[in-house]
Amino acid sequence: MKIRMTVLFLLACFFFSSSQSSAADVGYHDPGMKKVVQIAIVVKDIEAASKKWAQVLGMEAPPIRTTKPGREVQMVYRGKPSNGQVKLTFFNLGQVVLELLQPVGGGSSWQEILDKRGEGVHHLGFQVVDPQKSVKSLEGQGMPVIHQGRYDSNDGTYIYLDSDKALGVLVELLHSDKPAK
Amino acid sequence: MKIRMTVLFLLACFFFSSSQSSAADVGYHDPGMKKVVQIAIVVKDIEAASKKWAQVLGMEAPPIRTTKPGREVQMVYRGKPSNGQVKLTFFNLGQVVLELLQPVGGGSSWQEILDKRGEGVHHLGFQVVDPQKSVKSLEGQGMPVIHQGRYDSNDGTYIYLDSDKALGVLVELLHSDKPAK
Repeated sequence: MKIRMTVLFLLACFFFSSSQSSAADVGYHDPGMKKVVQIAIVVKDIEAASKKWAQVLGMEAPPIRTTKPGREVQMVYRGKPSNGQVKLTFFNLGQVVLELLQPVGGGSSWQEILDKRGEGVHHLGFQVVDPQKSVKSLEGQGMPVIHQGRYDSNDGTYIYLDSDKALGVLVELLHSDKPAK
Repeated sequence: MKIRMTVLFLLACFFFSSSQSSAADVGYHDPGMKKVVQIAIVVKDIEAASKKWAQVLGMEAPPIRTTKPGREVQMVYRGKPSNGQVKLTFFNLGQVVLELLQPVGGGSSWQEILDKRGEGVHHLGFQVVDPQKSVKSLEGQGMPVIHQGRYDSNDGTYIYLDSDKALGVLVELLHSDKPAK
């Protein structure tokens, strides 16, 4: 009786664990990306682009800043550490910000998309709760990570997925270390 | 005294009206575009694209519909009536919807951008209160109307501005005939 129970218990463990891992292996679970928070456009001259958008939106041009060199913020681009930098600015449009990006040296998806497509939309950014779960799900759908790093303020992480071919635009995951309010 | 007052009044009217019209002619007033409500992506196969986005967003794929032929909805593309049509679908992401567009014949900015750039972002859509004022302002900034029409439901108007070169993306103005709630 004891042996039968043990066998039953082991069998139950086996079926439970295999059903769990096979679901995870497929990776098609909800990537948790319902909250779009950024529309980002890559440009050649951020001062000029910012002036144009300020006029179109009827807003003051927001401040422009340059990010820290990539090696200071754990930047990895296509599998290698990168010293890439970007000038950026953000127009607040409610739930989303319109981000302008001008790459200023070093390998990055910013420079890659600018070289490939010219000025235009670089990514849609989504706030996510569990970035590793989101990455796993998206990788399972054929969209590998191509570029990632820490925020300059070192309190969060950004991750770009290579979804250009699949979705027509890159997807960015944004995750703050602080719990969401 | 009466003549002086009349002259003064007429001069005041002249200066007031000329300052009004010169400001309007420049067309750089606030185009009233602070509310972005659409991010639209043009695709070759909307059924396939919709399935991919549904998986990425962890949502059900929304219904797909085909618009009426352009001539039934007063479509004008690059200055001429057009019979253009598009298959479309909308993922609700809060303040904004993600719109997928597959052109299915006839001249349109949908087909033009697909031919020019391949699959990718077609436009950002803004809800506006006074579309003619917005158009005048944007035209004054070198972004002419390239494509417009009535909603299939005949209760609103969409207008695309040729802002691709200036902003890296088309801008769409959306205006419902009904007053906003």
